[in-house]
Amino acid sequence: MSKKRVAIIGAGPSGLAQLRAFEAAKKQGLEVPEVVCFEKQSNWGGMWNFSWRTGVGKYGEPAHGSMYKYLWSNGPKECLEFSDYSFDEHFKKPISSYPPRPVLFDYIQGRIKKNNVRDYIRFNTTVRWINYNEDTKKFKIVLDNLKIDKTYSEEFDYLVVASGHFSTPNMPYFTGIEEFTGQVMHAHDFRGADPYKDQNLLIIGSSYSAEDIGVQCHKHGAKSVTLSYRSKPIGVNWPEGITEVPLLKYFKGDTAFFKDGTSQKFDAVIMCTGYQHKFPFLPDELRLKTKNNLYPDHLYKGIFFNDTPNLIYLGMQDQYYTFNMFDAQAWVARDFIMDRYKIPTKAERRLDINKWLVENERLKSSHDHVDFQTAYIKELLALSDYPGFDVDKVAEMFKEWLKDKDENILTYRDKTFKSVVTGTMAETHHTEWMDELDDSKERYLFE
Amino acid sequence: MSKKRVAIIGAGPSGLAQLRAFEAAKKQGLEVPEVVCFEKQSNWGGMWNFSWRTGVGKYGEPAHGSMYKYLWSNGPKECLEFSDYSFDEHFKKPISSYPPRPVLFDYIQGRIKKNNVRDYIRFNTTVRWINYNEDTKKFKIVLDNLKIDKTYSEEFDYLVVASGHFSTPNMPYFTGIEEFTGQVMHAHDFRGADPYKDQNLLIIGSSYSAEDIGVQCHKHGAKSVTLSYRSKPIGVNWPEGITEVPLLKYFKGDTAFFKDGTSQKFDAVIMCTGYQHKFPFLPDELRLKTKNNLYPDHLYKGIFFNDTPNLIYLGMQDQYYTFNMFDAQAWVARDFIMDRYKIPTKAERRLDINKWLVENERLKSSHDHVDFQTAYIKELLALSDYPGFDVDKVAEMFKEWLKDKDENILTYRDKTFKSVVTGTMAETHHTEWMDELDDSKERYLFE
Ligand SMILES: Cc1cc2nc3c(=O)[nH]c(=O)nc-3n(C[C@H](O)[C@H](O)[C@H](O)COP(=O)(O)OP(=O)(O)OC[C@H]3O[C@@H](n4cnc5c(N)ncnc54)[C@H](O)[C@@H]3O)c2cc1C
Ligand SMILES: Cc1cc2nc3c(=O)[nH]c(=O)nc-3n(C[C@H](O)[C@H](O)[C@H](O)COP(=O)(O)OP(=O)(O)OC[C@H]3O[C@@H](n4cnc5c(N)ncnc54)[C@H](O)[C@@H]3O)c2cc1C
Ligand SMILES: NC(=O)c1ccc[n+]([C@@H]2O[C@H](COP(=O)([O-])OP(=O)(O)OC[C@H]3O[C@@H](n4cnc5c(N)ncnc54)[C@H](OP(=O)(O)O)[C@@H]3O)[C@@H](O)[C@H]2O)c1
Ligand SMILES: NC(=O)c1ccc[n+]([C@@H]2O[C@H](COP(=O)([O-])OP(=O)(O)OC[C@H]3O[C@@H](n4cnc5c(N)ncnc54)[C@H](OP(=O)(O)O)[C@@H]3O)[C@@H](O)[C@H]2O)c1
Repeated sequence: MSKKRVAIIGAGPSGLAQLRAFEAAKKQGLEVPEVVCFEKQSNWGGMWNFSWRTGVGKYGEPAHGSMYKYLWSNGPKECLEFSDYSFDEHFKKPISSYPPRPVLFDYIQGRIKKNNVRDYIRFNTTVRWINYNEDTKKFKIVLDNLKIDKTYSEEFDYLVVASGHFSTPNMPYFTGIEEFTGQVMHAHDFRGADPYKDQNLLIIGSSYSAEDIGVQCHKHGAKSVTLSYRSKPIGVNWPEGITEVPLLKYFKGDTAFFKDGTSQKFDAVIMCTGYQHKFPFLPDELRLKTKNNLYPDHLYKGIFFNDTPNLIYLGMQDQYYTFNMFDAQAWVARDFIMDRYKIPTKAERRLDINKWLVENERLKSSHDHVDFQTAYIKELLALSDYPGFDVDKVAEMFKEWLKDKDENILTYRDKTFKSVVTGTMAETHHTEWMDELDDSKERYLFE
Repeated sequence: MSKKRVAIIGAGPSGLAQLRAFEAAKKQGLEVPEVVCFEKQSNWGGMWNFSWRTGVGKYGEPAHGSMYKYLWSNGPKECLEFSDYSFDEHFKKPISSYPPRPVLFDYIQGRIKKNNVRDYIRFNTTVRWINYNEDTKKFKIVLDNLKIDKTYSEEFDYLVVASGHFSTPNMPYFTGIEEFTGQVMHAHDFRGADPYKDQNLLIIGSSYSAEDIGVQCHKHGAKSVTLSYRSKPIGVNWPEGITEVPLLKYFKGDTAFFKDGTSQKFDAVIMCTGYQHKFPFLPDELRLKTKNNLYPDHLYKGIFFNDTPNLIYLGMQDQYYTFNMFDAQAWVARDFIMDRYKIPTKAERRLDINKWLVENERLKSSHDHVDFQTAYIKELLALSDYPGFDVDKVAEMFKEWLKDKDENILTYRDKTFKSVVTGTMAETHHTEWMDELDDSKERYLFE
């Protein structure tokens, strides 16, 4: 009998977790299926693979990257640590709790370079379209080799969609925006604060992007930052130079008018209004349709598409937990594919999904959100041999992090936490975050 | 026997020309096939349908529009006039030779509103993927209804690709660009000069976009505009404030270093480096692969895909002629589809294509280019009943236009030309172009 074939879409943290999961099984001497990972970019790392390009990439595909210069982890690294590859193992010394993007990118690569998985990845290859054959239970995948401009197709028994969901902007319309005289862009196209020096900047949104882009522009010399919220303000203790106002109503020329009757002139607008889950390569009957939330419907254990469980989605949740959640998911997916983990009937799966959906509806505070995702991680960890870690301690760290941000949004990244994987206490960084304008790995690791 | 089915991709000037061609036949009492046009935007007009959005559209599809505020026709309208719907018929009075975008958009709509073709167009519908069945000779088209997020597929006997080719940026890399401190964008994302007021602007490229964006930014108050060319400078008589320099070598911080050893600090960079022909919805064997040029290979009469002639491409050439060329093409395509025009064997078609390719290779000056496309238009006009017009006169106008631009790039849009369709002499516009900052239809038609 020929080997089963598994296709993975995307070589970001989730897709790489899936590759790593199979490698781990192989190292245990198990026979693993044939795995191929398709990545439209020329390198791995997903979001963490920074690109200066906006709009479209070199080959005209929608640019994936939403990260920017001077981006630092916005949560403690101890909350995302791989439990099978610690920060200590990678950096050989304690580092601070909030590293910049290049340092986390290095860490992601470190684990994956230890294994020979690069050969499984076809880079510069976009997954263009997928057909599922109900009879043969196979996925026929149309691939587009961007470098040589050539399409072809292949068949697979399992499909793992790890294409991310913070890449396709959600961009609301506001009256007069087409006549606004300054630059208008979405956070997806933001590449760093430099162009906003000495400018009056308007940011729409009140979540992570709004907070971080606002603070970064403040740090790098914007004249003023105004955050405009729809549902509720971020409400932390803002420094002078950053203010929150209710939602924008309309623009007139260079002036924005807000719901509370106030108005102000701006030089530029950045819409931090979130992202759409977008799967242009999937037909209707396989397509996950959801908003950004902690438990998208239709996914059993948060990963198995209920109508067609040999279709697996990784990392589709809103994320407190990131790398370690993707790992926990990928290990379960692997065990299902390798017939080491069985799922119940469709109706039973539906009941389980519903249980989580009901629970999700009840959540009120940020603490509730953390507890909810913590419970989910615990459930996943129980299902595979992914090395367990003290999830409750991580949940505590998340709550401390929320408090730290509330108290001082400019200094929370100077705090340190203790690893649940190695017990190592993080180092205080050599420079306070507000004074550190260089985000390179060299500067970060400089002693 | 059931009617043949024709699919048109795109409701820009080319796709609308195709719809209009079938309507014209219907009005003559001929039986026409069933025609469906798919348009991913929510309105028709293609490039002329202005959108403030950049990057992706409302539903996360790559934004099509490359036009911007204050865009005026860059050639005399007398060179693009529909020969079956004159400017006189539409505006009921003479207008100037270089109208702004909203006025030309209005003109495009005028002809099409006279016919009930809107019903044939499925808006908010992206053509996602196409399979061609060699045996049945049918195209199976996968469609994505963006508004209700639903995919489906339908079969067609003919496929007309009218999706444009000035939408997917060609964005070269320059050393240091990822560290350049100002805004970097492609012309595709430029939406008007306002944000560049009092700025030092660097433009890469030496063709229409470079010229027009440079001049617009100068007109609207940029401090300086520097155009950097690869092959040769535009070389017109530039006003003070606009200069041309050889190609950029690299960036360092906010400074650009050029091939001639000079360097300068800039606030922003706009890459006017052209576009890619991109057909993500087509498999390899149907995909046109070409650079922007006056006679793309593989297209018989510039439209029939030689390997599969029931696949027709409209408007894929570089364009001196625009609306009237699309018309001439669409009429021939219609007659082929309706069996009123026969094409020779594949080998004979190849010979004909080669003849044009050889000719194209020989062209040297802009005048040669104009003459080449003029000869092509003449050939097309001889093949259908699209109303003939004096193409040689149009060629003369193009040459005058080239001279006008050479002499004074800031005043060439104040010149007037005589219609070859109606003989009407254009009016001088009420305001000189350099003083006219309002591009609205209302202001333009104000007396
Ligand atoms: C601005 C920003 C900042 C963030 N900061 C943090 C942070 O500080 N800490 C943290 O833990 N998390 C952060 N995140 C969350 C981040 O999304 C996750 O850390 C992680 O990158 C998600 O991994 P993923 O593999 O699921 O998706 P991604 O990292 O998005 O990777 C998906 C991959 O799929 C590829 N792909 C997509 N479509 C196709 C296709 N059709 N064919 C082939 N390949 C395709 C993409 O090119 C990409 O490489 C941030 C996110 C954003 C947007
Ligand atoms: C900045 C700029 C300025 C220009 N100025 C002039 C000018 O002054 N005078 C002039 O004569 N010409 C000008 N042009 C040239 C212009 O391209 C043509 O006038 C004309 O718009 C080409 O028509 P088209 O229908 O071939 O393509 P487009 O106008 O580009 O229309 C293509 C249509 O196809 C749709 N489409 C694409 N992909 C899909 C899909 N997968 N599914 C469904 N629909 C799809 C698009 O949404 C679009 O509506 C300009 C071009 C640019 C870029
Ligand atoms: N490392 C870092 O520093 C960093 C920086 C940026 C982002 N990130 C990560 O990136 C991911 C995405 O975060 P995000 O903030 O971009 O998205 P998000 O968390 O989904 O938040 C979307 C925001 O947009 C608002 N919004 C949506 N539609 C709107 C409308 N029509 N009008 C006004 N406001 C609207 C929402 O307001 P409502 O509350 O009213 O719905 C919400 O505030 C997260 O995982 C985050 O951790 C990390
Ligand atoms: N109505 C208007 O005012 C208006 C305004 C803008 C555009 N348009 C239309 O838009 C269409 C597209 O015009 P366009 O100017 O965008 O594209 P284009 O005519 O194809 O020109 C592309 C330009 O980019 C340069 N280029 C390409 N790759 C480069 C690289 N790696 N480095 C440096 N330079 C590079 C080319 O230089 P080389 O010469 O060296 O190849 C050329 O100058 C045309 O139909 C035009 O009429 C109209």
